[in-house]
Amino acid sequence: MTSYDAVVVGSGVIGLTTAWRLAGSGREVALVDAHPAAGASYAAAGMLAPVTEAAWGEEELAELNLRSVAGWPAFAHELEAASGCAVGLRNEGTLLVAADGSDRAYLEELLDYQSSLGFESSWCPAGACRELEPFLAPGVRGGIFAKGDAQVDNRRLLGSLAEAVRRSGVTLVAAAVDAFSTVAGHVAGVWASGRELEAPTVVLAAGWASSEIAGLPPGAVPPVRPVKGQILRLRGAPREPVLTRTIRALAQGSSVYLVPRGDGSVVVGATTEERGDDVSVTAGALYTLLRDAARVVPALHELELVEARAGLRPGSPDNAPLVGPASIDGLVLATGHYRNGILLAPTTAEAVLAVVDHGTLPGWAHACDPGRFAARRADEVAAARYLATTGDGS
Amino acid sequence: MTSYDAVVVGSGVIGLTTAWRLAGSGREVALVDAHPAAGASYAAAGMLAPVTEAAWGEEELAELNLRSVAGWPAFAHELEAASGCAVGLRNEGTLLVAADGSDRAYLEELLDYQSSLGFESSWCPAGACRELEPFLAPGVRGGIFAKGDAQVDNRRLLGSLAEAVRRSGVTLVAAAVDAFSTVAGHVAGVWASGRELEAPTVVLAAGWASSEIAGLPPGAVPPVRPVKGQILRLRGAPREPVLTRTIRALAQGSSVYLVPRGDGSVVVGATTEERGDDVSVTAGALYTLLRDAARVVPALHELELVEARAGLRPGSPDNAPLVGPASIDGLVLATGHYRNGILLAPTTAEAVLAVVDHGTLPGWAHACDPGRFAARRADEVAAARYLATTGDGS
Repeated sequence: MTSYDAVVVGSGVIGLTTAWRLAGSGREVALVDAHPAAGASYAAAGMLAPVTEAAWGEEELAELNLRSVAGWPAFAHELEAASGCAVGLRNEGTLLVAADGSDRAYLEELLDYQSSLGFESSWCPAGACRELEPFLAPGVRGGIFAKGDAQVDNRRLLGSLAEAVRRSGVTLVAAAVDAFSTVAGHVAGVWASGRELEAPTVVLAAGWASSEIAGLPPGAVPPVRPVKGQILRLRGAPREPVLTRTIRALAQGSSVYLVPRGDGSVVVGATTEERGDDVSVTAGALYTLLRDAARVVPALHELELVEARAGLRPGSPDNAPLVGPASIDGLVLATGHYRNGILLAPTTAEAVLAVVDHGTLPGWAHACDPGRFAARRADEVAAARYLATTGDGS
Repeated sequence: MTSYDAVVVGSGVIGLTTAWRLAGSGREVALVDAHPAAGASYAAAGMLAPVTEAAWGEEELAELNLRSVAGWPAFAHELEAASGCAVGLRNEGTLLVAADGSDRAYLEELLDYQSSLGFESSWCPAGACRELEPFLAPGVRGGIFAKGDAQVDNRRLLGSLAEAVRRSGVTLVAAAVDAFSTVAGHVAGVWASGRELEAPTVVLAAGWASSEIAGLPPGAVPPVRPVKGQILRLRGAPREPVLTRTIRALAQGSSVYLVPRGDGSVVVGATTEERGDDVSVTAGALYTLLRDAARVVPALHELELVEARAGLRPGSPDNAPLVGPASIDGLVLATGHYRNGILLAPTTAEAVLAVVDHGTLPGWAHACDPGRFAARRADEVAAARYLATTGDGS
């Protein structure tokens, strides 16, 4: 069979979750990826961090993130029941600490902003920080306790999703998508390794590479780009964990996070680099991560380095994802999740399902509407025309 | 055939070179190692550094090192002819630089010491250092130019030796040596994976593990121990090498070396750790190496990290090797080379051959005589007896 109700392109956390939900609605689904679960979702740390990821000017995204974290326990429960595989969801909150006085001043401002958004975060004085996490450096100047942040073991999550997808009858196609096939101006399927997979709905969930697939008119290509992140995994002793919850830090102006896993290991990340699709691990990035990590938790230097890796996040122009109908019929976008892909996977799948069922994006997903960039492009075209008319185009 | 003229235990640079020389003298040789060429010789950087390795109190060793480096070009030439494989010998000398004023004061003292040993090293002011190596940090305070130091690509060397050994008719036995076999109080061969290999001469060249093989009386076990070294390999562009010669540095009191290879890569090492046979790569060691390396050559942080590894050097009580007759007949030691194994491989093989031919160690190899520890042990036993007699044993 090469004809489906839906074809999902990309088998990261977004593609897997969406394929599972579409199959659960009774549809015949194909999920296509040459290297399943090997991209940004695999490289990630698995933080579900609406609070500590909230940034000035991204209030709509923060609201969506909050909605998504609220739904995560039920999602994890349902997924674990469907797959039989635990995902390692943890709800101890995140402690975001300041390494020096300048970092502390910044975090105090950030706490005001978080409070203005209605987050339940609170100031945690230095002594209380060390009571929560005894391995914190004595010089830590206090921090924000973000009760609402959680984490999931992203690799166990991918395994769990893959099993749920398999059990739900999705057809897995291990092939690269070379191009979209179009009929009379709308998307009607994809070409994958020389074979056509037909479907009235194609969901594009190929992360940063969503802009690389041929066959779309220029205006319909989603404006996503790779944003490189380098990340380390350190092995600790399971019975003597260095950390009991996620620690994020501002260390002399440099950001770092330390995410503890149940096996005693710690994920340390991450750089944010605009280097195209380069995935090399560089000496300088390793140095910076290890320096910043040890500024707040010196004992991390005793741990074994077991992995250093670079992943490519799908960045969008405003850091919010593109979820919803593309400007070409037959195509639904589910990409551009940048730093929040794992957090937003359940809500993204829910939004995609609503689009497929009803043709429109639910109101709560408004911030993700891909149409916002079409409007921007129209403005740009109009501005360019105006400048050309007035002759002021220099 | 399980009977040989000589059995060599250990297939690192010492064992390979010795086996090659013994076979070249017309002997039937077996070379036994479960993991050939995978130990300290493989992890190493390949420096041939009699000058910059010279340390106070190790004058006899320095003399031997100097003798060995002088013979290296002829050895490399002969080996390359025998194997058809280049070893990457380079003779640009080493530049040992000071990162700050305190480092510089130390290097000035060190230069006086090197001059007292007759080394051809000279002071190189900061400007001259940067003329030699433009990527050096502007703040470097000058250094010592050690004309007499060289380097070899240790991994190509191992490949070249393995080929020469193969062509010379040595029998390669890929098995772990479990024990020495002894007959009437002398060594008569080894047991390797349940099979006996007989020989009137057994050469023990198993690096730090030379003290781990069963079957020797306690007094005959060589006093060697593993000394952990962590080392990195960075990938650079072959046409734009960051360095043109080996740079060593004292960087705020911490030692680091940077060894450039012909392919643009740079080997950065090494820690010196007493941690038994632990070969884990730790976050702290990586951090320290990357920090110190960038203090003298900041551009190194742009390079890709392609390998991080720990090796175990064979340390001896006085940092000099143990080469020569053991205290039990039939056994010749060739171990304990610590930081100078690659440098000393040719002279070690020469000394072992002399011992096998004539029964005694040549005068120039006196500093390596294993008997020096037997004498020390005898002194200790006598001292213990004296204390026991006088009752002053507290």
